[in-house]
Amino acid sequence: MNPTEPMQYQYQKTVAVDLGPRSYDVHVGPGLLPTLGQAIVAMDGVTSAAVVTDSNVGPLYGQGAVDAVTAAGIPATLIDFPAGEANKTLATLSRVMDALFALTPAVDRSTVVVALGGGVAGDLAGLVAALALRGMRFYQCPTSLLADVDASVGGKTAVDHQAGKNLIGAFHQPAGVMIDVETLKTLPRCELIGGLAECVKHGVIRDASLLDYIEANAAGIIECRPDVMTELIARNVAIKAAVVAADEREAGERAHLNFGHTIGHAIEVLAGYGELSHGQAVSLGMVAANHIAVARGLLDSPDAEQIEHLLGKLELPTRRPGLDADEIWRIMQHDKKTLGGRVRFVLPTGLGSAAIFDDCPPEAIAEVIYYLGNA
Amino acid sequence: MNPTEPMQYQYQKTVAVDLGPRSYDVHVGPGLLPTLGQAIVAMDGVTSAAVVTDSNVGPLYGQGAVDAVTAAGIPATLIDFPAGEANKTLATLSRVMDALFALTPAVDRSTVVVALGGGVAGDLAGLVAALALRGMRFYQCPTSLLADVDASVGGKTAVDHQAGKNLIGAFHQPAGVMIDVETLKTLPRCELIGGLAECVKHGVIRDASLLDYIEANAAGIIECRPDVMTELIARNVAIKAAVVAADEREAGERAHLNFGHTIGHAIEVLAGYGELSHGQAVSLGMVAANHIAVARGLLDSPDAEQIEHLLGKLELPTRRPGLDADEIWRIMQHDKKTLGGRVRFVLPTGLGSAAIFDDCPPEAIAEVIYYLGNA
Repeated sequence: MNPTEPMQYQYQKTVAVDLGPRSYDVHVGPGLLPTLGQAIVAMDGVTSAAVVTDSNVGPLYGQGAVDAVTAAGIPATLIDFPAGEANKTLATLSRVMDALFALTPAVDRSTVVVALGGGVAGDLAGLVAALALRGMRFYQCPTSLLADVDASVGGKTAVDHQAGKNLIGAFHQPAGVMIDVETLKTLPRCELIGGLAECVKHGVIRDASLLDYIEANAAGIIECRPDVMTELIARNVAIKAAVVAADEREAGERAHLNFGHTIGHAIEVLAGYGELSHGQAVSLGMVAANHIAVARGLLDSPDAEQIEHLLGKLELPTRRPGLDADEIWRIMQHDKKTLGGRVRFVLPTGLGSAAIFDDCPPEAIAEVIYYLGNA
Repeated sequence: MNPTEPMQYQYQKTVAVDLGPRSYDVHVGPGLLPTLGQAIVAMDGVTSAAVVTDSNVGPLYGQGAVDAVTAAGIPATLIDFPAGEANKTLATLSRVMDALFALTPAVDRSTVVVALGGGVAGDLAGLVAALALRGMRFYQCPTSLLADVDASVGGKTAVDHQAGKNLIGAFHQPAGVMIDVETLKTLPRCELIGGLAECVKHGVIRDASLLDYIEANAAGIIECRPDVMTELIARNVAIKAAVVAADEREAGERAHLNFGHTIGHAIEVLAGYGELSHGQAVSLGMVAANHIAVARGLLDSPDAEQIEHLLGKLELPTRRPGLDADEIWRIMQHDKKTLGGRVRFVLPTGLGSAAIFDDCPPEAIAEVIYYLGNA
């Protein structure tokens, strides 16, 4: 390390997301947000920026982001909306659009939308960027672990509908992503833990050694040590980038990323948005999928136990009594990934690999719901 | 002609829109709508259909469309919304989404959205299809001349915002288009005439012989003769298809289709939506653009006069007193096609060709507004 280099750059990593003409880089490291202006300037022909954030992240990092962009010579304005999954709706999108189109000078195709915040801010601001003027460029600054390792790669944007999560959305790739791991220090602990569920997911479907890394560094992760978080996030981003690059529009293997999400989403919906965190629901969904995989002879029982143990160590739930199997099945039928009424499951086929199955009967769900209800 | 062939097919024409993996066919002819079911069945793996239409077109053709699809073995449901440009909003889109997600069995990626109606129905239903489940297939059945020759090709979907028309939208190509020219017989005469403005536009920017065809067949067009309308629409669809195929995402020459629309949109906004039809505004916009082109030596004065004469013959306006040049300029600055505040104009460079210019000063607009105000 060069001693004249600022401390905050020492752990920086960059992961390339290879999507042909829509390729972009994800920068990960501590202390990056103050360099946001340079990143925006490096985009071709940007003349103004709208920083879209929510009422939690805005007071913490909104002004800093606006100042960083403005200091680089690009006029920037903050647009915020009420935080929370309950506000990830068409109604909120409509209000953000109103604010965007009220800006002076008027937004045009040389304006960039900067999404600053967790998954809700990224999904909502991304959809705003996808739709305003039929497509504006956008730059993502995720500030939660879940957004860092999940929403930062893949270009999925969406709002929820009362019939289900993310039912209204678009694919719209960002022009770039900047993950400042310092922002994780202000993240509520439960949200940090929720993000870890997605990290475990990536390990199970693609990279058993990532599970070992998480196991070995659990303490540093919970403490949000900058070096550990930079390494953890960069590894996860690289896994997700590889999956997405192979299947941008989710026609095939990208669906592996839904591991834990089919039953997980249903559990989340049944609990009511906000009752159970997304990560907690995914944790339960992974336990459920693993149980089905073991029953079908796809996964060894000790591997399933190892994953369950790791989830527990990360303070993620592995049991949920009181679920109604019929309700779970009914909600899964409404999932947008169903095709002609068939529910598609991603099941692990070993530690680090997965495959898609569409032949799980309601009885298998009833059995696994019983399993989740008992210690 | 084979005498056993049903009369209604004798004029049918099919135009291929070549967009690689998103290619599709546009079928034009009288009496096609009763064959909608076969067209939907021919799409791969469709299990249900939602026919989205408005309160004008629904009572005329809604049940027929649903019956045609159902008779082919595909369950279909009608979803309608209040007619009119004033309802082409995010709020209406939200209500259509509610109806779509309330269907039983639940919609999934094997459901097709059928857009039945004029430009508003196509734009709105197309955006619903683009966003629901992050992209459902949709099939277009335009029923107005404007929708036939404009919205049926290109995949532009949108709703309006109070800051401007079509400011919120997406590119989403249909799986196919069926234009039943019989539906034009129920189209209000003013809307038929409005659609002719786009036909003249296509002639000016790409095909002088189309202008001759319109001139020679004006009477048959105004009477909506099936043979004349089939030929007229197929020629226009072919022109638009060629332009769009060369530039799907509107990075270059597709912008030629905005001929007459830069000032036209501003005139339409200034008049208030619904006060002046889109076609009438475009007619005035073309007269204005031609005037600028003549002043710059791009277009011969007799050619401009020929176009103006043709517009007049089609009962389209060529003069509009009382416009405020400053207001027009201000509204043009908000147009989503501006780039860094520069207003881009498409000007004819002869009969059948056009080019883009971004160096028109406010003074040129003031001069042309004066011209539009005087006979």
